[in-house]
Amino acid sequence: MDKRVSVLGAGVMGTALAIHLARKGIEVKLWGTKWDTAAIELYKKTGRCEKLETDLPDGIKYCFEDQLEYAVKDADIVILAVTSDGVKNITQAISLFISRDVVIANIAKGIDEATFMTMSEIIEDCLPEHLKGIPVAKIGGPLRAIEVAKGIYSEAMFACKNIEAARELSEVFKSPYFKSEVTDDIVGVEICAALKNAYAIAVGICEGIHPGMDNPKSAIFAQCCMELARFAVARGGRAETALGLAGTGDFYVTAQGGRNRTLGKLLGEGMNIDEALRHMANQTIEGYQAAKVGYKLLMEMEKKGLAKAEDFPILVKLYEILFEGKPAPQAFADYWKS
Amino acid sequence: MDKRVSVLGAGVMGTALAIHLARKGIEVKLWGTKWDTAAIELYKKTGRCEKLETDLPDGIKYCFEDQLEYAVKDADIVILAVTSDGVKNITQAISLFISRDVVIANIAKGIDEATFMTMSEIIEDCLPEHLKGIPVAKIGGPLRAIEVAKGIYSEAMFACKNIEAARELSEVFKSPYFKSEVTDDIVGVEICAALKNAYAIAVGICEGIHPGMDNPKSAIFAQCCMELARFAVARGGRAETALGLAGTGDFYVTAQGGRNRTLGKLLGEGMNIDEALRHMANQTIEGYQAAKVGYKLLMEMEKKGLAKAEDFPILVKLYEILFEGKPAPQAFADYWKS
Repeated sequence: MDKRVSVLGAGVMGTALAIHLARKGIEVKLWGTKWDTAAIELYKKTGRCEKLETDLPDGIKYCFEDQLEYAVKDADIVILAVTSDGVKNITQAISLFISRDVVIANIAKGIDEATFMTMSEIIEDCLPEHLKGIPVAKIGGPLRAIEVAKGIYSEAMFACKNIEAARELSEVFKSPYFKSEVTDDIVGVEICAALKNAYAIAVGICEGIHPGMDNPKSAIFAQCCMELARFAVARGGRAETALGLAGTGDFYVTAQGGRNRTLGKLLGEGMNIDEALRHMANQTIEGYQAAKVGYKLLMEMEKKGLAKAEDFPILVKLYEILFEGKPAPQAFADYWKS
Repeated sequence: MDKRVSVLGAGVMGTALAIHLARKGIEVKLWGTKWDTAAIELYKKTGRCEKLETDLPDGIKYCFEDQLEYAVKDADIVILAVTSDGVKNITQAISLFISRDVVIANIAKGIDEATFMTMSEIIEDCLPEHLKGIPVAKIGGPLRAIEVAKGIYSEAMFACKNIEAARELSEVFKSPYFKSEVTDDIVGVEICAALKNAYAIAVGICEGIHPGMDNPKSAIFAQCCMELARFAVARGGRAETALGLAGTGDFYVTAQGGRNRTLGKLLGEGMNIDEALRHMANQTIEGYQAAKVGYKLLMEMEKKGLAKAEDFPILVKLYEILFEGKPAPQAFADYWKS
């Protein structure tokens, strides 16, 4: 099939995907943003990515920020591996150089606070007229970059309204240690990807309230899975998406550890949100922002009759804890009594 | 409401539920089987359950094996907290003493290998004519006995075809630290309760193959959730049951640790099933038996056109590993390539 792939963004995930594809013998260009310049220089010089603890396979073509045209002009598939803040700019930038034959696949997650658009909706929205309707896919599922780079068994979900494009992506990525699923429920996948980080805070709160105990965490885990499914449905996706890789799978690993869970643990132990955020100074906590946007979107959907806030008690409690100063132990006591 | 509850079986779960109910001020009798005689004697003498690290609240009436009639004759609710092997016998024994006003609620899980009946179906089947049709419920969800006894936040699922009976049970158990859900999908709850132990072996296998890695475990976790849902549907239950407390919730805690996961880990590290079982000598591994019965039931359902084996790749691989001598690393390599 010999697809040419361009990976935009040389952070750990972009680099890991480039490594995986190059190992398969696929022609890959890895383009770095201005923040990636030092990394790209090191990759070229040392042939290794220290953060991924992995040697870079031959065949990756490295591109600096000013080589965007060269990076994308011959690509069949363009993978956006920039942060969610950068998705709009990079889409506009590549629009000058790509044709209608390209498939765009995006890694970034999140819901825009102003418009409630998902990342792929933002991409679709800012494509110029002559590119409207080209396939825009989301790469979802539980993927730690370092494990992908090291060739540990991994599985991804390729979601696209154009299911043929999803299948094409899935074929490009598939290997004996990389499984690929496809779905046309891109909304469901994006909702789960965005909100799982918020819900991981709730699992952390249980851990803070009752350290080492399983009953509260597993009860909350299940409630969060159900809320993910309901949210996906309210936003136009399907419940089954939350049951699978992009939902329970991604949430499982997110709830096991990491910053969202740590923030929750501090709150469960009794810190208020300001203390907890100070304690985690200088770290981005994706779930904190996701809970806010998720709650606001929930209110919006309730206004439109698409959802009822009472079906999302954990999301509501998270908002009270994170943005209205309610102590987490009190909020959870209220929840358990309800 | 003042319901009188009889708990049959004074193992850790029966004792924990009796403690929880007695703390609520409910009149509870706790009846011990012949294996529980020493425990009951100790409870009466010391007022404490050492295994649960908990003092026994006042108000529990303790009954020895020969006091079954006294234990159940005035009960509104009879809770069966015996092992799955004992469910048939205890049902027959209490049938002599209970009336049609009783609700039976069962804790034991499993599918009978000869008949493929769930525990509640076995109970219904062996009730005498004059008791046919009385509500038979399943108490499901992620409940560790010691956490229930200690008053840690817990949540249970009360499942009964008679939803009013489920609600009655739920009211009896509800407290500020014990949440209660109800469903009429008792088949779904029982399928999830039985098979989650088998699927926890699969999560353990991932841990054995790639210790400490998240991508494989979370991918398999999601696949297992989907198989639980499909199995519930094929057996006459609902997929949404697998998404909630009885499915993802119970599976989450089971997959975190315990014997099923340990067996899987040994298999993933390369032991064959005989070595692994020897290594875990003298321990009952519920998932081992569950995988066998689950697979056989799957074959039966396939014959009847109710399910396709190809939709249950993990259950099929588990059967190959546990009962046909296939090395787990090989079986999982095959799965990942599929």
